[in-house]
Amino acid sequence: MSSGSPLRVGIAGLGTVGTGTVKLLRGAAALLRQRTGRAIEPVAVAARDRGRDRGIDLAGCRWVDDALDLARAGDVDVVVELIGGADGIALELTRLALGHGKPVVTANKAMLARHGAELAALAEAHGASLGFEAAVAGGIPIVKGLREGLAGNRVERVFGILNGTCNYILTVMRETGRDFADVLAEAQALGYAEADPSFDVDGIDAAHKLALLAAIAFGGRPRFDAIHIEGIRHVTALDIAFADELGYRIKLLGTARLTPAGLEQRLHPAMVRKTAPIARVDGVFNAVGVDGDPVGLVLHEGRGAGGGPTASAVVADLVDLARGRRLATFGLASAALVDHPVASISAHEGAYYIRLMVLDQPGVLADVAAVLRDQDVSIEALIQRARNPNQPVPIVLTSHRTVEARMTAALAEIGRLATVVEPPRMIRIEAD
Amino acid sequence: MSSGSPLRVGIAGLGTVGTGTVKLLRGAAALLRQRTGRAIEPVAVAARDRGRDRGIDLAGCRWVDDALDLARAGDVDVVVELIGGADGIALELTRLALGHGKPVVTANKAMLARHGAELAALAEAHGASLGFEAAVAGGIPIVKGLREGLAGNRVERVFGILNGTCNYILTVMRETGRDFADVLAEAQALGYAEADPSFDVDGIDAAHKLALLAAIAFGGRPRFDAIHIEGIRHVTALDIAFADELGYRIKLLGTARLTPAGLEQRLHPAMVRKTAPIARVDGVFNAVGVDGDPVGLVLHEGRGAGGGPTASAVVADLVDLARGRRLATFGLASAALVDHPVASISAHEGAYYIRLMVLDQPGVLADVAAVLRDQDVSIEALIQRARNPNQPVPIVLTSHRTVEARMTAALAEIGRLATVVEPPRMIRIEAD
Repeated sequence: MSSGSPLRVGIAGLGTVGTGTVKLLRGAAALLRQRTGRAIEPVAVAARDRGRDRGIDLAGCRWVDDALDLARAGDVDVVVELIGGADGIALELTRLALGHGKPVVTANKAMLARHGAELAALAEAHGASLGFEAAVAGGIPIVKGLREGLAGNRVERVFGILNGTCNYILTVMRETGRDFADVLAEAQALGYAEADPSFDVDGIDAAHKLALLAAIAFGGRPRFDAIHIEGIRHVTALDIAFADELGYRIKLLGTARLTPAGLEQRLHPAMVRKTAPIARVDGVFNAVGVDGDPVGLVLHEGRGAGGGPTASAVVADLVDLARGRRLATFGLASAALVDHPVASISAHEGAYYIRLMVLDQPGVLADVAAVLRDQDVSIEALIQRARNPNQPVPIVLTSHRTVEARMTAALAEIGRLATVVEPPRMIRIEAD
Repeated sequence: MSSGSPLRVGIAGLGTVGTGTVKLLRGAAALLRQRTGRAIEPVAVAARDRGRDRGIDLAGCRWVDDALDLARAGDVDVVVELIGGADGIALELTRLALGHGKPVVTANKAMLARHGAELAALAEAHGASLGFEAAVAGGIPIVKGLREGLAGNRVERVFGILNGTCNYILTVMRETGRDFADVLAEAQALGYAEADPSFDVDGIDAAHKLALLAAIAFGGRPRFDAIHIEGIRHVTALDIAFADELGYRIKLLGTARLTPAGLEQRLHPAMVRKTAPIARVDGVFNAVGVDGDPVGLVLHEGRGAGGGPTASAVVADLVDLARGRRLATFGLASAALVDHPVASISAHEGAYYIRLMVLDQPGVLADVAAVLRDQDVSIEALIQRARNPNQPVPIVLTSHRTVEARMTAALAEIGRLATVVEPPRMIRIEAD
């Protein structure tokens, strides 16, 4: 163990996570010193509003007006970047610090999902490290889990519930039978969802994390742009109820796997069997599953956001630095990172849930079945409840395993049938 | 990252885990080299039966008749100890290797639970490391998770389902309503339980793991002897059914926490709420939960035994060594490890499930209630189903939170009542 001189930390950004990090470094100072053999000391902070009372002790910490100065300062050993945003000052600061050979710890998933390969190469070239435990699934130490704890495995699939806001909304929708807009409004009022919720509910935030998980799991450069993304706005209470009847839960699930066609990365509402461990992760909790050979399935579950859990992850990276441990950003030397071919979503193979709103007339089902037959899609289960002659009623069916392109073609044709009064709704069913 | 020369591995013991480790090091050689910058090569093995076909490629591996030679051999960089047993040759080999400054990786929970503090000090004195990821919960990387991933946390509680055989038996008992002896016999026939099952079903194996988890979580020397241990032999189908009715599952649960009275370590059947994440871990799966400040609850779930999962953990430790990363055995310098005072089980505070078999006569309940009242134990719920006048019928009750000493005294007195025809059964209820 390295010991002696303190690890001097400069923190850029004093929001919830920055504040939580300072609080943790102060409150657990003795414990951290014992665990690392060194003190880990916040020595400088850069944040917008110097006057605001954040309820933390900043004694001995100097204020820096320009965050970039943290990268240049001789008395700062490591920069903790908590400003956020894929570009702008966060990226500039990270580049500058790494370029000076100064390690960076960040919670910035957006930046890493888009510029991760460049930053990893920069870190490597200057002998610095770039820690991002806090960027994926908050307090769950899954970056370390994948890069180190499961390093003996060939990963077959990495998947997870990566956005607590969406999981909370879907959980409440299921428990109360209420609709998306209603539950979202409540979540916003409670502070669980942002005023502009699109980053969360449209799946962007979760997709950033998926890109990072996939990079580590499959030794590739993060490819956010290659992820097929669908958010949860179109999930209805009706679909959640049908899912329940069929034995499923609907989760916003990110999945990455290597297929013969290349790396498949998908982030979308998915039906998972009620009995699957991931189905039982509710509320604001996140979970990440890893299917590895030879380990089998390992599931990690915990709080994916919030000042405390995220600060726990930031400090884990600082502890690694204090102990003198560093590792290539994505677990492999930059030059060894692969650009996997991108498996298009139309090549995805799986089962599907389909819900149609049809006029309650004889022959509708025959028409639908004929279209599916012509696309070679076979039906596994069907729920039809005729209630209102000549009024719209739902028809729900699940398919056997098929190729997405066939399903897409079938749905386009079904949508054109005169008796089908709404665009068909499709949700992928995830094999366990 | 260190690079260049191979890490030469000597493996003592070629059972399921040893065989799995060789297979993994061979099968994932290219991947491991890429991830560590070095080859990780099995170069020597010591096992009993040289002639047996284990279905693995031992080309380039020399056989060593005396396992101790692995510690002495100049061409072995690390000894993987998979012989097992708390003492004997495993302990001798580990001492010898560490004494030579040679790192040891082991899956031997019994040895570490009993001699961990001595071995950690020996490793430290000779600059060697002692990896034991494989000793706790098989493939789940919880040793690394606690020592590193959650290193920023003050751990409040660590708990888990630590024995797959017991969890399998309890799961089948619940699903089928069958009794312990019956399910155990079947598990033995299927190879899920040993011919002599006591190590598993009496809780010894799980308690070994708990001692190690507690040592890391609370910075103490492992104290196997201080654990209160009860196995699952006395869990009945009747209690499982009552638990279900009351909203609980019965799990063999290990729990360690720091209380004002000292370190409480308990390994016993416990009732956990059906809705708690740990309640849903079924079959041969293991799970370890960590309640940390500030991270909250983090739960890790995966396969706790078997050649593949355990080899995954062995290789994770080898990957750490190949990357030049090492850490104090229990996360702290030996001298900093504390001997926590032992909190006796009689000081445990919690709620209790009690089942009595009583003669179905008027006044029985009044007698029982009076005893509990006199011990200041208050009743939370009660189930009484009179069916056979003057025949034994069960009375089930749950208590509010109380001190175990009071409950023990009450049960002793209740057991002496003339109408109580069997020793009272007590199962602790675990708060979430």
